[in-house]
Amino acid sequence: MTSTIDAINTSQYAAENRTDFEDALRRADLVAAELGATAAERDRANGLPTAEIDLLRRHDLLQVGEPVESGGSGLSFAQSQQITRRIARGDTSIAHLIGYHFAQQRIPHLFGTPEQAGALSRRNAEEKLFWGGVQNPRGADGLELTRDGDAFRLNGRRTFASGASVADQLSVTASFEGDLVFLTLPTDRPGFRPEGDWDAIGQRLTDSGGVEFRDARVERHEILGDPDTPPGFSPYQTLVTHHWQLAFVNFYIGTAEGAFTEALDWTRLHASPWETSGLDSATEDPYILELVGELRAQITGAALLADRAGQALQDALDFGPGLGADQRADTAIAIAEAKYATTKVSLEVASRLFEIQGARATTSAYGFDRHWRNLRTHTVHDPVAYKAREIGDWTLNRTAPAFTLYS
Amino acid sequence: MTSTIDAINTSQYAAENRTDFEDALRRADLVAAELGATAAERDRANGLPTAEIDLLRRHDLLQVGEPVESGGSGLSFAQSQQITRRIARGDTSIAHLIGYHFAQQRIPHLFGTPEQAGALSRRNAEEKLFWGGVQNPRGADGLELTRDGDAFRLNGRRTFASGASVADQLSVTASFEGDLVFLTLPTDRPGFRPEGDWDAIGQRLTDSGGVEFRDARVERHEILGDPDTPPGFSPYQTLVTHHWQLAFVNFYIGTAEGAFTEALDWTRLHASPWETSGLDSATEDPYILELVGELRAQITGAALLADRAGQALQDALDFGPGLGADQRADTAIAIAEAKYATTKVSLEVASRLFEIQGARATTSAYGFDRHWRNLRTHTVHDPVAYKAREIGDWTLNRTAPAFTLYS
Amino acid sequence: MTSTIDAINTSQYAAENRTDFEDALRRADLVAAELGATAAERDRANGLPTAEIDLLRRHDLLQVGEPVESGGSGLSFAQSQQITRRIARGDTSIAHLIGYHFAQQRIPHLFGTPEQAGALSRRNAEEKLFWGGVQNPRGADGLELTRDGDAFRLNGRRTFASGASVADQLSVTASFEGDLVFLTLPTDRPGFRPEGDWDAIGQRLTDSGGVEFRDARVERHEILGDPDTPPGFSPYQTLVTHHWQLAFVNFYIGTAEGAFTEALDWTRLHASPWETSGLDSATEDPYILELVGELRAQITGAALLADRAGQALQDALDFGPGLGADQRADTAIAIAEAKYATTKVSLEVASRLFEIQGARATTSAYGFDRHWRNLRTHTVHDPVAYKAREIGDWTLNRTAPAFTLYS
Amino acid sequence: MTSTIDAINTSQYAAENRTDFEDALRRADLVAAELGATAAERDRANGLPTAEIDLLRRHDLLQVGEPVESGGSGLSFAQSQQITRRIARGDTSIAHLIGYHFAQQRIPHLFGTPEQAGALSRRNAEEKLFWGGVQNPRGADGLELTRDGDAFRLNGRRTFASGASVADQLSVTASFEGDLVFLTLPTDRPGFRPEGDWDAIGQRLTDSGGVEFRDARVERHEILGDPDTPPGFSPYQTLVTHHWQLAFVNFYIGTAEGAFTEALDWTRLHASPWETSGLDSATEDPYILELVGELRAQITGAALLADRAGQALQDALDFGPGLGADQRADTAIAIAEAKYATTKVSLEVASRLFEIQGARATTSAYGFDRHWRNLRTHTVHDPVAYKAREIGDWTLNRTAPAFTLYS
Repeated sequence: MTSTIDAINTSQYAAENRTDFEDALRRADLVAAELGATAAERDRANGLPTAEIDLLRRHDLLQVGEPVESGGSGLSFAQSQQITRRIARGDTSIAHLIGYHFAQQRIPHLFGTPEQAGALSRRNAEEKLFWGGVQNPRGADGLELTRDGDAFRLNGRRTFASGASVADQLSVTASFEGDLVFLTLPTDRPGFRPEGDWDAIGQRLTDSGGVEFRDARVERHEILGDPDTPPGFSPYQTLVTHHWQLAFVNFYIGTAEGAFTEALDWTRLHASPWETSGLDSATEDPYILELVGELRAQITGAALLADRAGQALQDALDFGPGLGADQRADTAIAIAEAKYATTKVSLEVASRLFEIQGARATTSAYGFDRHWRNLRTHTVHDPVAYKAREIGDWTLNRTAPAFTLYS
Repeated sequence: MTSTIDAINTSQYAAENRTDFEDALRRADLVAAELGATAAERDRANGLPTAEIDLLRRHDLLQVGEPVESGGSGLSFAQSQQITRRIARGDTSIAHLIGYHFAQQRIPHLFGTPEQAGALSRRNAEEKLFWGGVQNPRGADGLELTRDGDAFRLNGRRTFASGASVADQLSVTASFEGDLVFLTLPTDRPGFRPEGDWDAIGQRLTDSGGVEFRDARVERHEILGDPDTPPGFSPYQTLVTHHWQLAFVNFYIGTAEGAFTEALDWTRLHASPWETSGLDSATEDPYILELVGELRAQITGAALLADRAGQALQDALDFGPGLGADQRADTAIAIAEAKYATTKVSLEVASRLFEIQGARATTSAYGFDRHWRNLRTHTVHDPVAYKAREIGDWTLNRTAPAFTLYS
Repeated sequence: MTSTIDAINTSQYAAENRTDFEDALRRADLVAAELGATAAERDRANGLPTAEIDLLRRHDLLQVGEPVESGGSGLSFAQSQQITRRIARGDTSIAHLIGYHFAQQRIPHLFGTPEQAGALSRRNAEEKLFWGGVQNPRGADGLELTRDGDAFRLNGRRTFASGASVADQLSVTASFEGDLVFLTLPTDRPGFRPEGDWDAIGQRLTDSGGVEFRDARVERHEILGDPDTPPGFSPYQTLVTHHWQLAFVNFYIGTAEGAFTEALDWTRLHASPWETSGLDSATEDPYILELVGELRAQITGAALLADRAGQALQDALDFGPGLGADQRADTAIAIAEAKYATTKVSLEVASRLFEIQGARATTSAYGFDRHWRNLRTHTVHDPVAYKAREIGDWTLNRTAPAFTLYS
Repeated sequence: MTSTIDAINTSQYAAENRTDFEDALRRADLVAAELGATAAERDRANGLPTAEIDLLRRHDLLQVGEPVESGGSGLSFAQSQQITRRIARGDTSIAHLIGYHFAQQRIPHLFGTPEQAGALSRRNAEEKLFWGGVQNPRGADGLELTRDGDAFRLNGRRTFASGASVADQLSVTASFEGDLVFLTLPTDRPGFRPEGDWDAIGQRLTDSGGVEFRDARVERHEILGDPDTPPGFSPYQTLVTHHWQLAFVNFYIGTAEGAFTEALDWTRLHASPWETSGLDSATEDPYILELVGELRAQITGAALLADRAGQALQDALDFGPGLGADQRADTAIAIAEAKYATTKVSLEVASRLFEIQGARATTSAYGFDRHWRNLRTHTVHDPVAYKAREIGDWTLNRTAPAFTLYS
């Protein structure tokens, strides 16, 4: 699977946990290989990713981002998103789920008290919890938290809640007395109901349907931070957005890497030389060689931007709560650059690989179209033109991207 | 359906049959509308296009290319491919079938005796026959015709025989004593068997599976021309290739036109303004407007190249059997230019429309991904890089494309 | 010069003046050949285009757009811009001048009384006047016309007044009591002074420097129409903008055609095969052939859009003063599509031709860089992104481009 | 100058010489600023770069790549090419010269005896020699070395010998008894004559004209290695090619960075909002912001590929003479990927920046066209299509690029 794709230069990460990181990457590669073998089939079946989440759990991948002292592997957030990229080489939907999962797990560390964050980290490590999210911000006004005596009640509906049906625990964003609050809830909370209505042209195994909360009780400790103190988020906290965006960037480029490897393997085995080329083998065709080279150069460049984006976010996180607004903007821009490039490159790769393989690769059984469908589905999550605009506005005017759940 | 796409300038066609042509276009638009309403659904069902061929027949579209004196509408070949384009706005698979069908119907006029051509034209008009084809040239050596007393026997297998299961009549290419011969056979000929194994990521209703001939009897009159005189095809006859290529060009661009119209209709009704745009409506978004404009300009340009290619082929056909090799090359190049542009543009349109519509357009029920899948499937029929090369070789060196069933 | 570029299909133009049109095209080809032979040299010299205007005059090209009854050749405006395209194959600056000139000559027919228009047409034909223009609209408030007894006075300054130093007659746009008025003045009018400060990276021979009017007297008859009746321009009159835009479109694509032909001629004579290609000749190189083919297909498509834009404007002009706002919008959009495509394609052609020719083609003496410099200079005249936006707004929302001197 | 371009992450380089490296980068930035201020003017003057080489020497930049023990700054080769990139932000021609210079200085370390390499390093450091090169490989058979008693004679002619007129010392490639040999000669050697005929559309200050050797005497010690032992170059030695290619990659991307910074600075000061945009400032224009963002993302991605290419070559050099053929191929491919991307991106940046700045930026005095001319001139040095092909052949077939002076 990884033969034609450069392995990540793990040496860029701190030496102290390199072995744990490399072990986790190896497990991710195994999982990707297993998922890749059946990805086309499972894409057609359009089921819930229950078995797939179990696979991730059995390979001890769900808790790698938690601190060693809490029982995790202590991978940095940037390292965890390299796991996402590896999984995407085998199955983009599952990479989407684990990428979001790693992001959700960091939210208590941004918005919660140290006690909340610590307790959740320990539970994540011990119970290998899988996290879903209910914070699709489009129509963010959809969920409302209200007081109910000492406790609270949550009401509303949201679409695109990835993994909400199969998760153990939910990371939820709601509005509360005019402010945005972050909650964590178990999925078996009465009043919560996933609608199971996800059926899209791609990312079919991400369980991203609508969810509803009807008078669901929320305890005070399930609200991250102190609900009585309006947050006034710090630049550090608003890095929350980039946790998700870094996941996107990694599963886009991982998908391109996996599709490329798969297509070249197929080409070596099955492709025929073009009739009028006068060649004995498709693998000698000057236009095929040129296209392989062009796509590889583009993939490598986009992957480097994704690595740099991870580094930028990690540096900002490592800097800590005192992070300045400009540093936050620089981080956002590094991620936006990677978003722009991985979007453009991965879509082009997924579409043009057929020109390398030729007509027989369009047989449904191979399911090679799923790569484009997966990428096309998620890359419209938020418009890449606005990412370019944000980069431009920062570069030309030093106007930082405003904090939203997208920017 | 046609609101945003320029109607063809029918005035470029000879005045004598303008009414018949415009009537046929109108019928094609009706059929396209009917097909378009259920295209996503039928794409998923992956059935045989039996009802769809009936629809074409009921609307008197199958025989429009036959001479008036034989009972047809007397449309020129270029005009008939405008029908293909219209149908593609509603359903690319059915456009593929009718586009090939129009091409197959012209083969007797290129290779047959006047009697053969006349008789088939009359039957086509009277019986509204639908033609399938068995000449996929990749592995053209697959079908072998041999003598058997006064008659002949046909043996072999081919893949990608579009419409062969649902056709009334077949246009077949076989090798016979070292030469290429063109045959016509009814599909109920004993020994002929469509394998019904078509299942591709796109063009799913084209019934393009494999077929087999096992000792099928072929009568002498079913061989076009005189089988005892090796053909030594004239430049005029080798225009056969461009009949198919002109069909491709037209269903590529028609698909782009249909997808564009469909996406804009959807956008007006369903699209939401981007959250960070500060706009009230997606239809005011500067990036959406720019992209709509860019795609439209590209579609228009590619459609003009397709019109010009049709004109070029028609001019060559109208010139008649004395056509010179250079004129044949000029025709081939005009079609190659259109092939290059319609391939590139239609794929880009089908992929980027989602950026206009946004995330909700990825819902499976709409089936908007079928456009990309349809185009991606057929545009690898023959590599577009070789088309560019042929244009280049003629332009730079006056080296004409060699005759093959692709060039 | 025209060997690899398709000759325009003159049959699309009305039969009555085909001979005159073809004669004019032939004269334009001669002039283009003469200009092309020294274009690189004259580009370096950066002089005034006095001799070049004389050449156009001597070949009877300045008055071809005037009616036969006035002594001209009676070419339609669309036909006259085909002359512009031919000239651009030899020298883009001179094509720019004649393209604007043809547009300026039509302004009296849009805004003037029949008497004004007729008198000027007769003078144009008899005296073979060359027209310059002072209406660069950026900073359109720069020129102010005021009353002075029975006459008027003109004051102000403008940049980018093409051909103003070398012209016989000027077409001027000014503001007058809050309205826009169109004037015609001889260049020897006291108070008018061209500043002769044009020195740009391209279009170096267009004499497009600044001009100043200081208390220049203007007679009542030199104001087109009736200055006492505020105009309230009709859709027909606002087609004025598209006269200029059609000139742009034609000299962009003509430049691309000329550069392409020149580069291929050079390649046949001078290019070496690439060392590692193992080939005997650069003209066999698979990548060179592919690129030639790709560029040619793009040039042809853009040229067809330019032809269609000319047809659209001509149809609107032929419709006459009762033209509706929607027809005006359709015309504007056809021209915007051509503008988008010719801009993009011509720049790409001018830049990528070097990849066909190789390193030795960068020698200054050839001056092959002038094509990119010429195109880059003029294609930022008005931003092509706004053209795409106008197309999008009309297509998606039926919002017509507002009348400005750009749209 | 560097405000909008990320500073190189110097931490990726070994700690031991970080201070020296950062000092050298700072000096390079000063030189770039000084060169940038007059680059447009000097481009027009087309002189010999004598003063510019002096400037490099005065800022102690010529010997930074020599070992500390020889008197240099001990920068690695990859580090030295970061100097090239910085200089390119100010003047691409001078970056070309220093980039080649650093490469020439490493040749004795690849092909010479330890004594030869050590002696030359010491002279380079002490005398701050500037090196030119005479090895343009196109027509590599042009220079012939023959025996003449104990010494040798050199005869022949070559084109494109960068810096040969202004250099102190020359690095020369010649054929000797059927083999390729590398020589070093002082430029005042009798029989050597630079022809001073360089006049190209770009890289005008690189002094890249033809040179001639007529019976020039060559001493045995001036031939690197042992002329009596035919070399049979090792993979390690054939890394020579990538020394030049890494220089190219760095001055391409440095040029794009400098052009981008310059254009944005100009835009902030001088650009006007587009008339129909309804905006107060060009810096708020949605299309300008988008384009700035897109170009920046592309520049960053290409710069990361250039960094990675430097790292790859440095790792291979640090591995040492036992380097395997596969490692050599991996290095070549990393550099080819960077070559592909920096070529494509830098040309696009240089051309599209005008769309940010608008029409007034085409004034000759600014000389903003020099960026495209510089890049266009050098990027056809060797065809980028063949670089893509090499990447493809290695990726698909594990066929390593054959050693040539290009690959």
